[in-house]
Amino acid sequence: METESQTVDTIRRPVRGAQAPPSTGSNPKHAPAITQVSAPPSAVVYCEGNFAQIDGKTANGLVRHSQAYRILSVIDSTCSGQDSGSVLDDASNSIPIFGHLDAAVAHEDVIPDTLIYGMAPSTGRLSTADRSVVLQAIELGMNIVSGLHEYLGDDPEISNAASVRNVTIRDIRKPKPSKDMRLFDGSVAGVKALRIAILGTDCAIGKRTTATVLARALNAQGIKTVLVGTGQTGLMQGAKYGIAMDAIPPQFCCGELEGAIVAASEAEQPDIILIEGQGALSHPAFCTSAFILRGSQPDAVILQHAPKRAHRCDFPDMPMPSAASEIALIEAFADTKVIGITLNHEGMSEAEITATIAAQSLSLGLPVTDALARPAENLLAMVVAAYPKSTQRPDVAAR
Amino acid sequence: METESQTVDTIRRPVRGAQAPPSTGSNPKHAPAITQVSAPPSAVVYCEGNFAQIDGKTANGLVRHSQAYRILSVIDSTCSGQDSGSVLDDASNSIPIFGHLDAAVAHEDVIPDTLIYGMAPSTGRLSTADRSVVLQAIELGMNIVSGLHEYLGDDPEISNAASVRNVTIRDIRKPKPSKDMRLFDGSVAGVKALRIAILGTDCAIGKRTTATVLARALNAQGIKTVLVGTGQTGLMQGAKYGIAMDAIPPQFCCGELEGAIVAASEAEQPDIILIEGQGALSHPAFCTSAFILRGSQPDAVILQHAPKRAHRCDFPDMPMPSAASEIALIEAFADTKVIGITLNHEGMSEAEITATIAAQSLSLGLPVTDALARPAENLLAMVVAAYPKSTQRPDVAAR
Repeated sequence: METESQTVDTIRRPVRGAQAPPSTGSNPKHAPAITQVSAPPSAVVYCEGNFAQIDGKTANGLVRHSQAYRILSVIDSTCSGQDSGSVLDDASNSIPIFGHLDAAVAHEDVIPDTLIYGMAPSTGRLSTADRSVVLQAIELGMNIVSGLHEYLGDDPEISNAASVRNVTIRDIRKPKPSKDMRLFDGSVAGVKALRIAILGTDCAIGKRTTATVLARALNAQGIKTVLVGTGQTGLMQGAKYGIAMDAIPPQFCCGELEGAIVAASEAEQPDIILIEGQGALSHPAFCTSAFILRGSQPDAVILQHAPKRAHRCDFPDMPMPSAASEIALIEAFADTKVIGITLNHEGMSEAEITATIAAQSLSLGLPVTDALARPAENLLAMVVAAYPKSTQRPDVAAR
Repeated sequence: METESQTVDTIRRPVRGAQAPPSTGSNPKHAPAITQVSAPPSAVVYCEGNFAQIDGKTANGLVRHSQAYRILSVIDSTCSGQDSGSVLDDASNSIPIFGHLDAAVAHEDVIPDTLIYGMAPSTGRLSTADRSVVLQAIELGMNIVSGLHEYLGDDPEISNAASVRNVTIRDIRKPKPSKDMRLFDGSVAGVKALRIAILGTDCAIGKRTTATVLARALNAQGIKTVLVGTGQTGLMQGAKYGIAMDAIPPQFCCGELEGAIVAASEAEQPDIILIEGQGALSHPAFCTSAFILRGSQPDAVILQHAPKRAHRCDFPDMPMPSAASEIALIEAFADTKVIGITLNHEGMSEAEITATIAAQSLSLGLPVTDALARPAENLLAMVVAAYPKSTQRPDVAAR
């Protein structure tokens, strides 16, 4: 809880999510809203004490982009009364923040369909205070969506309450039975699409956001691109292909990711498949990227890095790696190449972003951009520079 | 099923488990039986069609070493009537092989306590034929132990049968609830014991066997050593510290392993902790060793390698890596050093073992030995060479 922010709205929160825009005060140009083609269920996102923070990354992602749910409002008493887009990205998105569930429900004409638990605490567990909100939503007749490791559907109290009220509980991270999982079999090598993994130097650093912006830019250019999600936020946002890798037994991690990529390839015949990374290959606690590199066998990697981050998210005693050391590690671990760096500009001014892009590009000898603070064309150019028309990928080169 | 082996006993099976002794016909000198200090439950090990094969590695491990169960017999109709020690290691161990469960039970005065499912198929699943044997054992009143990914306790038919007969089902790979799991927090850095991980270039290549032999040799020298298991076979054998890593959500893999090491350190105050590896860091399907290196932060690594293995176990299209490439990968991935190579001598004659030890030692510039075919003193010397008395480890050096 950041009680000091409650009274002084103009004070910047120290960390405002992985991909908050730079500190300019101007509106961002490159975060268009997604147009809904049908009416998905409405949802209130619960993010008490964590909206626009790192552990609120699920809520932050959902107010920026959601295909599977129509996001009505956010619950976080520490920024109640504000516009969630203004708090997160300095640009109104007309998704208000309320202090509690009663206020969020009272704001609507009908009871919202869904309560989404919008936090991703590193413990993956439900607090006592959160539990009472979940039970209150069930009592109101709302379905529950959760990305916690602690499956709410397995919790006797919550499960019984849901049964009584005839509402559903969707545990995004709950894997299918292992008998229905697949082992890696090498079939990913037969996928024709160029495969690019978006990895990072830490958790909650903006890998998914950069991947989403890049997918949109490539598709806008007529280069058919599918994003394969690997985390719970992407699945909640409505990713058509993907798995919550962090909840799959390691025996099946490579195989299940390979299966998602092969399925996307067969169904969509894309030119490019982007694969969302998780954690960091160098991370002592969260190195699921090892499975992502093995299971997706990517042709290339784009590395998301936060130059101003002092230590790993949630681990004050663990220093951040440099982009250079992470690149060396990735290229030693897998037969792939890092084709560019994308910045998370947390804590940086516009001038610092410009200077850092120039400096890192020079020292690493790679294109560097920022998916949110710089034009998407720069991100697109990074891919085209690595795979120009002369490459062996005629599907891409022909565009 | 290898039907040709049924009729011609003298024909060598092509693969006889990860650590079968070399083709000499003489008895191995370095595989003493473990003395039981109390009377553990009796058990029949079911391994139809796979005993002394790679996928029978759980059964192979149990007839060689078991503290948690008293192994009475093995079931495998393809080598019925033989002695399991003779089939596996050319040395009788008085554990007979029967063709079916009825025969195994009829051989005992009382119904055995337990049926252990002794296979580790890469799919991790129960076949239809195996199911009927499990149900038959339950009907006889035997408890069931399984290391399958498909939890038998969650299977309605098996679970109901067990309930009716009042027998237990122990699913070795079933993890505790995620709310009871721990995240990596760096506390492993405070462990005083020297940590050595026994990794390998493939699955089912003898990592656990080499670790067991080394632990025994170190303890015999008065260097107190604890082996932390990471797979289901070690846990079935009775490893006091360990987890079945392949069934733990990736979010908690590093943390749970760290927890097991810290617990072993606190309870036993050992000089050395050995950590059993899993799969191979280079393996496209099974790279759990990434979590093992991150979670255990080992000072050193011993690498188990099978020079004659043509392709990865269960993956005919995947070539084996060289020892040199795996060493480079391990040392690039983690801040550790490989201090020696241990051979799996499958397919090798005594002369080939000698020649290979000499050649690999020269080309890699590292000590090379074979944990089963060469004296355990050689394995011990590998550790002492890397950590002589002059090292910074007074606990070890003082011995």
